[in-house]
Amino acid sequence: MGFVSSNNQQHLLSKIATDGGHGENSSYFDGWKAYDSDPYHPTGNPDGVIQMGLAENQLCFDLIEEWVVNNPKASICTAEGAGDFMDTAIFQDYHGLPEFREGVANFMAKVRGDRVRFDPDRIVMSGGATGAHEMLVFCLADPGDAFLVPTPYYPGFDRDLRWRTGVQLVPVPCESSNHFKITGEALEAAFRRAKDANIRVKGLLITNPSNPLGTILGKSTMRDILSFITRNNIHLVLDEIYAATVFSQPRFTSIAEIVEKERGSNSINTDLIHIVYSLSKDLGFPGFRVGIVYSYNDAVTSCARKMSSFGLVSTQTQHLLAAMLSDNDFVGKFIAESGKRLAKRHEDFTKGLAQVGIGSLESNAGLFFWMDLRRLLKEPTPEAELALWKVIVHEVKLNVSPGVSFHCSEPGWFRVCFANMDDDTMRVALRRIRSFVAKRKAMEGPAKRQCWRSNLRINLSFRRKDDIAMMSPHSPLTSPLVRART
Amino acid sequence: MGFVSSNNQQHLLSKIATDGGHGENSSYFDGWKAYDSDPYHPTGNPDGVIQMGLAENQLCFDLIEEWVVNNPKASICTAEGAGDFMDTAIFQDYHGLPEFREGVANFMAKVRGDRVRFDPDRIVMSGGATGAHEMLVFCLADPGDAFLVPTPYYPGFDRDLRWRTGVQLVPVPCESSNHFKITGEALEAAFRRAKDANIRVKGLLITNPSNPLGTILGKSTMRDILSFITRNNIHLVLDEIYAATVFSQPRFTSIAEIVEKERGSNSINTDLIHIVYSLSKDLGFPGFRVGIVYSYNDAVTSCARKMSSFGLVSTQTQHLLAAMLSDNDFVGKFIAESGKRLAKRHEDFTKGLAQVGIGSLESNAGLFFWMDLRRLLKEPTPEAELALWKVIVHEVKLNVSPGVSFHCSEPGWFRVCFANMDDDTMRVALRRIRSFVAKRKAMEGPAKRQCWRSNLRINLSFRRKDDIAMMSPHSPLTSPLVRART
Repeated sequence: MGFVSSNNQQHLLSKIATDGGHGENSSYFDGWKAYDSDPYHPTGNPDGVIQMGLAENQLCFDLIEEWVVNNPKASICTAEGAGDFMDTAIFQDYHGLPEFREGVANFMAKVRGDRVRFDPDRIVMSGGATGAHEMLVFCLADPGDAFLVPTPYYPGFDRDLRWRTGVQLVPVPCESSNHFKITGEALEAAFRRAKDANIRVKGLLITNPSNPLGTILGKSTMRDILSFITRNNIHLVLDEIYAATVFSQPRFTSIAEIVEKERGSNSINTDLIHIVYSLSKDLGFPGFRVGIVYSYNDAVTSCARKMSSFGLVSTQTQHLLAAMLSDNDFVGKFIAESGKRLAKRHEDFTKGLAQVGIGSLESNAGLFFWMDLRRLLKEPTPEAELALWKVIVHEVKLNVSPGVSFHCSEPGWFRVCFANMDDDTMRVALRRIRSFVAKRKAMEGPAKRQCWRSNLRINLSFRRKDDIAMMSPHSPLTSPLVRART
Repeated sequence: MGFVSSNNQQHLLSKIATDGGHGENSSYFDGWKAYDSDPYHPTGNPDGVIQMGLAENQLCFDLIEEWVVNNPKASICTAEGAGDFMDTAIFQDYHGLPEFREGVANFMAKVRGDRVRFDPDRIVMSGGATGAHEMLVFCLADPGDAFLVPTPYYPGFDRDLRWRTGVQLVPVPCESSNHFKITGEALEAAFRRAKDANIRVKGLLITNPSNPLGTILGKSTMRDILSFITRNNIHLVLDEIYAATVFSQPRFTSIAEIVEKERGSNSINTDLIHIVYSLSKDLGFPGFRVGIVYSYNDAVTSCARKMSSFGLVSTQTQHLLAAMLSDNDFVGKFIAESGKRLAKRHEDFTKGLAQVGIGSLESNAGLFFWMDLRRLLKEPTPEAELALWKVIVHEVKLNVSPGVSFHCSEPGWFRVCFANMDDDTMRVALRRIRSFVAKRKAMEGPAKRQCWRSNLRINLSFRRKDDIAMMSPHSPLTSPLVRART
């Protein structure tokens, strides 16, 4: 019997498998690979790459571990809870454990300051936000249809929304000149461009708080967006997976608050509005794969629930979270403390950079900030940005993510994650980037330095002499950066 | 601002959301709904519907709970294991925890009598077997392509393989006249039919052990299948999720054993061979959503791993299972004891039915058997089968599944699940079905009764007087069945 050689895979496998649409070749993931092959460790590999490309919230696990140990009945793997093992392990209803849905609905409300309620019967599970986004697209759009997405946007959307659905993403370019705000004009222009190209636009995807910007939508922007989707009768998917990471004023306004306020007023069509949520960022449990679709459209809720069979949350995890997320003392303390710690970390980092003249977009949310290195580019091109990024990853040994991987239309911006490391690692990372910038500046003439200062962005306004106090006593000459570059 | 009324959803949502392709309206799921609305409980609802439509293995949870309590370090929610909580909760690599993949590979080998090894690096996670099947189809076929599937087959395949992928299933009808065996002729005929209809066949899906038949593939059938897929250069997906449920001779032969034996012989193209596995049936953990794709094709393994982002297993569950499935004392004991208990349950049930003249297909695996009620049909049509099924569900109050929902080409067969209940419930179920059949027979004349006896199937051969001993002492007149029918 003859058989096919492996160079015939193209024909043997699907187009999805062979067309490279997964997007893993983006520089976003390349940075992860650089980290994976040489990960920093304070003693084992002090010259390794520090992972600053991972938006993860590791600042409050002491609170979580304390709760877990104090609540043995919440787990089916303790002597106290093992009696629930069988009933939990065999539960496979795609609605999910009722107490899990109640816990999630409760947590979602608490994160939004109890200004809004969520109906547990609308909570639909999926495999992380990744699965939630794909599920919604499968419900809302056919192959060839498009979603508008303001740039810069999370690189994983290219995989989540497009790869297996055949749907396209149409960028809505936003610019630094107005702080990357989403405007009605930009939305209409993108919509028209798609229409001219005979592409049917089925929806608009917004992340609020924004990944990668760390900003939240203002009320007037929200109004523009709602007016836009209502006028064009397209869906609005609000990704609010960073809702609990808002660490300072102004406060976050969820689309749920607007829906609740406007419901029945006929000014918005709630059938068009869908929220994606997750516990990966707000609680810091990406491994647990809890994604949530919360749609105000009954048909979508029903269809998504059927689709959730492809990515249900493990009942072991549902059972644990049901208890954890219903404990209002814990939830309240966690949200407050997490906000405080994120604010501190954000301030330490952005101040530390401001001292050496590195600005960033003003922000009050997220597990990252949007760093402005435009002045370090040889020229304002994506190529120059990637060249600089390669130096930062391979020489400075910091895996930050280049703006181009977020489809940013303006070269020179980088996303810097700050909550996935301990204080010591943060200090090492800060030293490395400060030292790098100081060297670059030293190589430039006094005129260029002057230019640097005059172009500093908003975050530099809080730069004060006593900020030096928060810096490590180590001299830059003995910093890991120097050693890393030998 | 105007907005669309809900009768416009057809246009607003995707074709997938509105074309009913999920298949939830099958009688298979209808039976579940009947159970859900009136579930049997020995004291709370003794006249309720007994769930015999759920292939679940609940016979060995005493062994599992004992292991869990004795291994507190295996859980991240015990005082002993909580130190691993953060590292586990934040782990989101789509390769999975290395120790989890090793544990699964170890368990898969043990289930197959250690006659074959599995490479942990080929273990790809997915959201249950449901997710595994969809993932493989996304890797192997384009919309419009087809997979051949011998009938009767698991009703969920219509959802898993077709719904979101746009791929078709082409049935390969198998008949009771040769014990529903899959023949080379039937495969070739189905392949030709598809070709004549201009449908591109990309693969063949086989469940071994078979769901719903409870039978295993013989070696000659396996050879016919391999010869068929090699000749036509199409994929072979082997669903082996019931591998550990084989409870008596002949022993189960995994496709993995044949691949290992034939590898390098050029007689088969291993690039075409893919295994679907799961812990939902063999261990009885459907709630934990552990699906596995094990492909011998490197490109498929790589693509499926990327796709697994949509349905990864919770790391809390991976962590627990890593320890459990690597404990060879436990694994050995579990597999042996589970087999014994399944054999006993199968024998009790089929003998109990044989005593009243109900036959079933001879089988040695699965959590169900294939019950022959052809003699009870008014006429040999799917309509008559569904009419009988409605009586069984709504009057006899047993949710068995009708053959038509498994696409069986011959009316009168029903799948009866026997491992998802305790001994007492099993006895109630048996009394109900015996009493029902006895009544039906009493309504018939002596000539028809004679016909019944002479047509009994193989399983009646072990009918002996002392079988009565296993029956409950309750008289049929006071059985729940009678009360249920008032």
